[in-house]
Amino acid sequence: MVPQYKLTYFNLKGLGEPLRFLLKYGNLDFEDIRYELKDWPQIKDKQPFGQLPTLEHNGKVAVQSIAIARYLAKQVKLTGANDWEDLEIDSVIDTITDLRAKIISNHENEEAMKQVRKESIPFYLNRLETIAKNNKGHLAVGKLTWADVYFAGALDFINARAGVNIIEKYPNLQKVVDTVLTIPQIKKWVATRPKTDL
Amino acid sequence: MVPQYKLTYFNLKGLGEPLRFLLKYGNLDFEDIRYELKDWPQIKDKQPFGQLPTLEHNGKVAVQSIAIARYLAKQVKLTGANDWEDLEIDSVIDTITDLRAKIISNHENEEAMKQVRKESIPFYLNRLETIAKNNKGHLAVGKLTWADVYFAGALDFINARAGVNIIEKYPNLQKVVDTVLTIPQIKKWVATRPKTDL
Repeated sequence: MVPQYKLTYFNLKGLGEPLRFLLKYGNLDFEDIRYELKDWPQIKDKQPFGQLPTLEHNGKVAVQSIAIARYLAKQVKLTGANDWEDLEIDSVIDTITDLRAKIISNHENEEAMKQVRKESIPFYLNRLETIAKNNKGHLAVGKLTWADVYFAGALDFINARAGVNIIEKYPNLQKVVDTVLTIPQIKKWVATRPKTDL
Repeated sequence: MVPQYKLTYFNLKGLGEPLRFLLKYGNLDFEDIRYELKDWPQIKDKQPFGQLPTLEHNGKVAVQSIAIARYLAKQVKLTGANDWEDLEIDSVIDTITDLRAKIISNHENEEAMKQVRKESIPFYLNRLETIAKNNKGHLAVGKLTWADVYFAGALDFINARAGVNIIEKYPNLQKVVDTVLTIPQIKKWVATRPKTDL
């Protein structure tokens, strides 16, 4: 049978892994297409906005990883119970994106990264830790949502670029990640997925 | 009567104006709180993530401008008809955000901005123009959605930072903006809102 979804990304975790986590969580059948970075110059111009990941479904192609994650979250029933709950989830997702952008945009500059490790990471993590504490080990609305799955799926790449385990001193954030990684479908995926550094 | 919503931002258009457009579009009663930039150092630490805008509703406060915009879009019925349509809308919103980030992060460096004007802006705008053409003068799903209202509300600030009118050569994108700016509630708001440079 032809898979329902086609996810195209690089052969790394990066911005693709949170989407793979969501697809696996919901047992959605998908083709996991992975390009090597060295082949990117030949492939870039064929992408709608010169970027990956893309998601193909019913013959249509979508871009933008967070938008795709939100769509998948709806398919696997990991959204909020009402509009305000979805706002809480979207808000923490965009905050994770801000933190990641701060790390990614500075990771090649060791002086800048020292500052990011000393200031930005604790600034964000202290606040996210309080949120996780107030939500009983979740990132929003007091239960498992796509914010938790997204964060757990994004963490390896963020940590690799940060050069530290950003949640090491934050037990409630560690609980968020542990909860996701012990979900059987996710646990199996992590044990069997292609091994990559990033 | 106490307004239902409280929007807190700076006394400028920036990331706040698309939210004001959405509130005005839906005739939602809101308090439009505007801080002067010079007062920001005293206010910053009181914000949940040291950032504005925030939206207050029913005694709860939300952060992150795009997340807030999506929430308001649901209240004023400017979303898609199904999950895939919402993905199309979210995707174009995130693309506008990418373009804006590229402009904002370089606007203080004239050499970098020359490159942004020569490469990034045409790259994004050509693709967005094709989308607007294929969607009959809208940014997604062939009808008015919050993507159109967001873009029209964000444009003045983007243009001010870009130093050019980025849609000048793109008739279908101009049509998107014209359609929004002729909606009576929006037209009235633009005519009567506080005058600001950014």
